Amino acid sequence: MKMAKSKLFFDVAASLDGFIAPEGMDMAHAANPEYKQWLSQWSKLQSWVFQQKFFRENLKLGEGGETGHDNRMLEEIFKRTGVSIMGKRMFESGERFWPEEAPFHTPVFVLTQEVRKPWERPGGTTFHFVNDGVESALGQARKVVVGNKDIRVAGGANVIQQYLNAGLVDEFTVHYSPVFFGHGVTLFSGMSKNISVKIKEAVASKEVAHVTFEIVK
Amino acid sequence: MKMAKSKLFFDVAASLDGFIAPEGMDMAHAANPEYKQWLSQWSKLQSWVFQQKFFRENLKLGEGGETGHDNRMLEEIFKRTGVSIMGKRMFESGERFWPEEAPFHTPVFVLTQEVRKPWERPGGTTFHFVNDGVESALGQARKVVVGNKDIRVAGGANVIQQYLNAGLVDEFTVHYSPVFFGHGVTLFSGMSKNISVKIKEAVASKEVAHVTFEIVK
Repeated sequence: MKMAKSKLFFDVAASLDGFIAPEGMDMAHAANPEYKQWLSQWSKLQSWVFQQKFFRENLKLGEGGETGHDNRMLEEIFKRTGVSIMGKRMFESGERFWPEEAPFHTPVFVLTQEVRKPWERPGGTTFHFVNDGVESALGQARKVVVGNKDIRVAGGANVIQQYLNAGLVDEFTVHYSPVFFGHGVTLFSGMSKNISVKIKEAVASKEVAHVTFEIVK
Repeated sequence: MKMAKSKLFFDVAASLDGFIAPEGMDMAHAANPEYKQWLSQWSKLQSWVFQQKFFRENLKLGEGGETGHDNRMLEEIFKRTGVSIMGKRMFESGERFWPEEAPFHTPVFVLTQEVRKPWERPGGTTFHFVNDGVESALGQARKVVVGNKDIRVAGGANVIQQYLNAGLVDEFTVHYSPVFFGHGVTLFSGMSKNISVKIKEAVASKEVAHVTFEIVK
């Protein structure tokens, strides 16, 4: 029996002016959340996430939480993800802030110049370090992805842009958070105008509008 | 009986990377639609509009057209609009391309340095030229708006940004069109991070996702 090919997808929370991280949220200011108010800005972008039951359980943040559509969305994204791919900066800040049991519970491929042996964490997350680009990382992800699971580009923006512009993404969701940043890390910068997209669905709560797009190949 | 105050709103079609006009779409290249393929790019952004029955009738483009949610959305926006406000560049390109019966059928206030007498068009559109800024234009609009109608900021991006950053907007809709431009006129540039927003609704067809936001004052 032939299996359907795993989809490559991403989902990301963006401000209304198109940023996925506020100005000042970088490694140099990680210990200084007052700088440009980056922490309070980022918290506005992510506030819907921290309220969801599934997210709270997955990060062991405690009992309770919302159980509506926003929660189902997070849970479905987690459950469909068999492998994640991320950039070096996302890994480095995550390495610092994730709990010891990193919240992936799958193989994760990290795009980096650094040569490093796989790093196993408790709970089933293993980080593999890839030195030869996005197509190689995707190829390695396809080899290990299990069953009918999909492959998620976890971020950051630059890695997402590389996969989109290379025509490798199948679908994506933008979680539009109702906040303006003014400055920050731009989600879609220097995009190719030849990418052909159609809308799959839009669903909103008061705090976030999820719009899912399919790439037309 | 006290009337509810007219709302100030805007609605605008944006590419997924946040542009309301593609690179090359300017007065200098108006006669050269091949330049940076600006016309075909713009047509992708607006393709859902041209298919709608209400729009076709309003611009006298011919019979027929879609009658679903996208059409109702355009019709509601038109019907609630008692006065429009626009910037000088939007007026100048419109002056060139609108039919003689301009498609507003209401007073329109144009923000400009030019001193010019009101310009009446057949069909009820009168353009008034305002030389002293966005608050003055809004004040003049409030004086002439009729009954329970609202005031629409028609564009462009710079005028929208001025009204938003001045805290004068009550609500807005972004019509997200599934297209990437790469470069162009940015909808939300230099936004104040103190604007507080919540989501009112999101509705999508395959061609466009309408997300409506309310400003929290």
